[in-house]
Amino acid sequence: MIYTNSLIYIERHESQIPWLKIFTHTPRKEFSECNIEEKQAIWKALDIIEKEMIEYFRPAKINIASFGNMLQRVHWHIMARFENDEYFPEPIWGVKQRDGFVLEAPMEPFLEKVKRELTSRFD
Amino acid sequence: MIYTNSLIYIERHESQIPWLKIFTHTPRKEFSECNIEEKQAIWKALDIIEKEMIEYFRPAKINIASFGNMLQRVHWHIMARFENDEYFPEPIWGVKQRDGFVLEAPMEPFLEKVKRELTSRFD
Repeated sequence: MIYTNSLIYIERHESQIPWLKIFTHTPRKEFSECNIEEKQAIWKALDIIEKEMIEYFRPAKINIASFGNMLQRVHWHIMARFENDEYFPEPIWGVKQRDGFVLEAPMEPFLEKVKRELTSRFD
Repeated sequence: MIYTNSLIYIERHESQIPWLKIFTHTPRKEFSECNIEEKQAIWKALDIIEKEMIEYFRPAKINIASFGNMLQRVHWHIMARFENDEYFPEPIWGVKQRDGFVLEAPMEPFLEKVKRELTSRFD
């Protein structure tokens, strides 16, 4: 668990790339069923996380997605992508392109920084 | 072209499933680089389109994504997904699950309706 408040919580998804997931505490099937406070909290969290990922990892691109076809509950994925990651330029759900990607920068300082930013910006 | 205003434009993506794409007129690499008016216009358009897709198609799930790994320019995908579509429950960028999906409801009345909704809600 990276962050939680009364509306949303944010988890790390175990992956070779930086990948966080944002959930609403109240289960909703579709994003349009969220109330305005939940929607705004998710957009704000995505914006904060994206900027922190760009600053820290200097990725080739940020990817954002909300599917929920299996777990039919609103959750958003946000990932930093790199030209040599295993799926680039495919989406991470696409066809694997290569092996052997290792993230250069350590994950922990990023997680600590994004945790601090979320906490200070949501307070 | 489904809709355009000073900030964004919306196109249909040719597919067996209902699939629209939202672009900013001003090219931006990452969503966090959009100005607040562009961000709000995209969130509003996604909300309008999602609700119209749900009402008209009664899909199993709405999927939303923004990648841009190849075309590095902010654009959002929004799709209505069905349990018998060719990729369900995989994302549309995943592994094909079956053949022969045919959308039951005609696309044109939906496109007309969503065009009207976008025009009236953005004015």
